Amino acid sequence: MSEPFRIGLLGHGTVGAAFAELVAERADAVERRVGRRPVLSGVLTRSRGDFDELLAGSDLICELMGGIDPARDYVLRALRAGRHVVTANKQLLSQHGEELWTTAAEHGVQLSFEAAVAGVVPVIRVLRESLAAAHVDRVHGIVNGTTNFILSEMARTGATYADALAQAQALGYAEADPSDDVGGKDAAAKMAILARLAFDAPVHLDDVPCEGIEHITADDLEYARELGLGLKLIGTAERIDGGLSVRVHPAFLYAGHPLASVSGSFNAVTVESAAITEITMSGPGAGGPQTASAVLGDVISAMIPPPMPPAPPQPMTIVRDVRSAFYLHMEVADRPGVLAQIAQVLGEHEISVKSVVQKGLGDNARLVMVVHPVLESRFEAARAHIAGLDFLRSAPRAIRVLDEEFI
Amino acid sequence: MSEPFRIGLLGHGTVGAAFAELVAERADAVERRVGRRPVLSGVLTRSRGDFDELLAGSDLICELMGGIDPARDYVLRALRAGRHVVTANKQLLSQHGEELWTTAAEHGVQLSFEAAVAGVVPVIRVLRESLAAAHVDRVHGIVNGTTNFILSEMARTGATYADALAQAQALGYAEADPSDDVGGKDAAAKMAILARLAFDAPVHLDDVPCEGIEHITADDLEYARELGLGLKLIGTAERIDGGLSVRVHPAFLYAGHPLASVSGSFNAVTVESAAITEITMSGPGAGGPQTASAVLGDVISAMIPPPMPPAPPQPMTIVRDVRSAFYLHMEVADRPGVLAQIAQVLGEHEISVKSVVQKGLGDNARLVMVVHPVLESRFEAARAHIAGLDFLRSAPRAIRVLDEEFI
Repeated sequence: MSEPFRIGLLGHGTVGAAFAELVAERADAVERRVGRRPVLSGVLTRSRGDFDELLAGSDLICELMGGIDPARDYVLRALRAGRHVVTANKQLLSQHGEELWTTAAEHGVQLSFEAAVAGVVPVIRVLRESLAAAHVDRVHGIVNGTTNFILSEMARTGATYADALAQAQALGYAEADPSDDVGGKDAAAKMAILARLAFDAPVHLDDVPCEGIEHITADDLEYARELGLGLKLIGTAERIDGGLSVRVHPAFLYAGHPLASVSGSFNAVTVESAAITEITMSGPGAGGPQTASAVLGDVISAMIPPPMPPAPPQPMTIVRDVRSAFYLHMEVADRPGVLAQIAQVLGEHEISVKSVVQKGLGDNARLVMVVHPVLESRFEAARAHIAGLDFLRSAPRAIRVLDEEFI
Repeated sequence: MSEPFRIGLLGHGTVGAAFAELVAERADAVERRVGRRPVLSGVLTRSRGDFDELLAGSDLICELMGGIDPARDYVLRALRAGRHVVTANKQLLSQHGEELWTTAAEHGVQLSFEAAVAGVVPVIRVLRESLAAAHVDRVHGIVNGTTNFILSEMARTGATYADALAQAQALGYAEADPSDDVGGKDAAAKMAILARLAFDAPVHLDDVPCEGIEHITADDLEYARELGLGLKLIGTAERIDGGLSVRVHPAFLYAGHPLASVSGSFNAVTVESAAITEITMSGPGAGGPQTASAVLGDVISAMIPPPMPPAPPQPMTIVRDVRSAFYLHMEVADRPGVLAQIAQVLGEHEISVKSVVQKGLGDNARLVMVVHPVLESRFEAARAHIAGLDFLRSAPRAIRVLDEEFI
C-alpha cells in the first residue's frame, strides 16, 4: 500500500474547516482514483501550531489563512522546502504572484490557486491548461458574489443599496466590513490574477482601477429595466491596441448577454479568443464547501504525475424508467366533456396537470397541457389510454419538460 | 535547445486541417510556455501514408479520423508503443472506451479526448481534474450543435423542421446525412463518455436510449412559447436510487433555466453535486478551429510533466482609457430646450445617443439616456460640461453599458 499523502493546513476559518471535512469525506474516493490516501498532517492557525513542524510532516501545504502576513512567508518557505502549495489567497497572488511563481518554478513544485478566483468555477485550470497556448483577447465576468447578490436583490425587490447590503450580511453573503467587496477591490485582485494567466503579463493589483457599487441607487435600476438593462459588477481584462486594460466597474447588460442571467451569489467568467469564439463558465463564487471543493481539485492534481486514466470502472444499475414532466398535445373533437374525460384518465394514472391551453374550434380544436413530473412508464400508459378515446383526431404528442423548479 | 515534440496526425478533414494550421500558428507560444516546440511529424489519411512509419517518428498520435475502423486499431497500436494519444472520436470512446483506457494505463501513457464532447467546452478536463473526487449527482446539457441550431431556428423564425434542417445544411451546421445528429445518437455517444467520467461506471453507447428531434413540429414550439417554454435536445446522466440513468431526448425548458439561453450551434453542460451546487460551461460545440483548439490543449498537457508554472511574464502597456457605452441619468429643470442643449453638448464631444427616456414633471423631471461606445475620457469631459449647465438640478450620474452587440 502506498504512503498516505500528507496535507498541512494553514487556516481553520470557514473554508479551512470545510476543507478538513471534505478531505475526510472524500479520502476513499481520492484513494481509489489516484492510489494514495489524502490525510491532514496538522492544522496551523494564527494562534496555534508550529509551522516548521507542520512543514516537516507534510507533502503539500494548503494555505487558507488569507491576507499577506504571515501567509506570504509560509508559502515561500514551503515552496523553498520543495513542497507543493495550494492556496485560495487572491490578495497574496495579486500582489506577490511573480515572486511566488518564480520560487515554485525554481524548486520544481506546483503552486495552484483555483479557489482564489470565482470559487468552483474552473477558470484558472481552463486558462492554464485548456487554453495554455490560445491567443486570448478578453476575459470578463462577474467575480464577486457579494456584489452580485446585492445587485440581484436590488433589481428583484426594489430595495435600496443599504437594505440589500444589510440582507446580504444577515444571510452571510457579506462580511461585517464589506468594503473590499462592495468597493470592487476583491474583484480587482481576481482580475489581476486572471489577466496574468490570460496574457502572460505581470499585472499587479495596483494596475487595476476599480469602482464599486456603493453609489448605485434603486432609481438607476428602475430606469434601466425600462431600457431593457440589468446591472452587474463586471471585471474586464482585454487587449487594446497591443496594450492591456484591466478594470472593475458596475455595468449594465442587455437581457440577451450571457452574463445577464447570472444572479444571486453566483460567479461567471467568459474567455474570448478568435480561435475558440468564447467559453463561459458559471457556478457558486464562494461558500465554504464550494471553495473547499476547488482546493481539493488542486490537491488531487498535485498528488499524481500524469498519466491519469479515468478511475477503474464500477458497475452501476442502468435505470430505464425515470420521472419527467410532460407537454401533451392533443387534437380533439370540439364537443363538451372532452377536457373532463382526459382529466379523468390522467387522474386514474395519478398524473396531475399543471397548466392547460385550449385552442381552436371544430376540426381545429386541440388541448395542450403540461403535467407535473411522473414516471415515464406511467405517463406512457396514460397516453396510450388517451390515444384510444374516440374523440381524439390523431395520436397525442408528448415532449418532456425539464426541471420544474425553474418555473 | 530541447528536441521538438513530434505529433503524428491521423485524418485531414475539417478538424485535422484546422489542427495542422493551429499547430503552425501557435508553435512559438507553446514553446515559450512549455519549453518544447510542437511540430507535425506527418499526416496519415485513409488514402495515403504509412502508420508504422508515422508512429516511429512521433511522440504523440492525434487521431482525428473519426469512426471505429481503422481508428481503433491505430489508437491501440500507438498506446501499446508507449505513445500518448489525443482523440476527438466520440464513437470510438463510447463503444471501446474501457479497452482503450485500460491499454493506456497499462503502458503508462495519456489518452486525452476533450474535443470528443462539446468542442471547446472544457467539460472533460473539469470532470477528470477539478472534480476528480467529487460525488457528482447529475450531468446534463446540450451536447449537439446541429440540433440546437435547428431548434433555435424553428423557434426564432417559425420554420418547419425540414426547412430549418435545410438551412443548417446550407450553413455547414449539418451534414448531408444528418441522421446521427438529428436522431440523437451523436449526443448519446457524448453522454456515455460523460457518464463514464462522472460516475466511474462503464457506460456503453448501447446503454443510452435516445430520441431525436425529427418529429418536432413548428406547432409544438408555438404552443410551448405560450406556456413560457423553449425546446432543446437534452442529454442527461444522473444517479437514481443508487443506479444510473443516461438518456437523450428533446425537452422543454422554462425561460429561467441556465440552459434556456444557449442558442444556435453552442453547447453547454451543467455538472451538479451537493458539495459544489453546480458548474455550467458553454461555448461553441463544433467547428474546425474550435475543435482543433481543444485538441491542442490536450496535446500541451501531454507535452509536459507538472509542475507547470504560468508562462514567464511579458510586460504589456497598461491601457487606462477605454471605450464604453454609457447610461446617463440627469435631473433637470422642466423647461423647453433642455434636451436640445444636452444633445448639442454630446454632439460637440462626438458622442451619439442610442436611446432617451424623459420622465417626471417640474421638480421631478429627469432625462435618462444610453449613448453609444466612446472613449471614457471623452465621455467624462462631456459629463463635466453637462454638469455645469444651469438647468441641472444635481450632478449627472453615469454607469457603463456592456456589449452593444447583444441588444
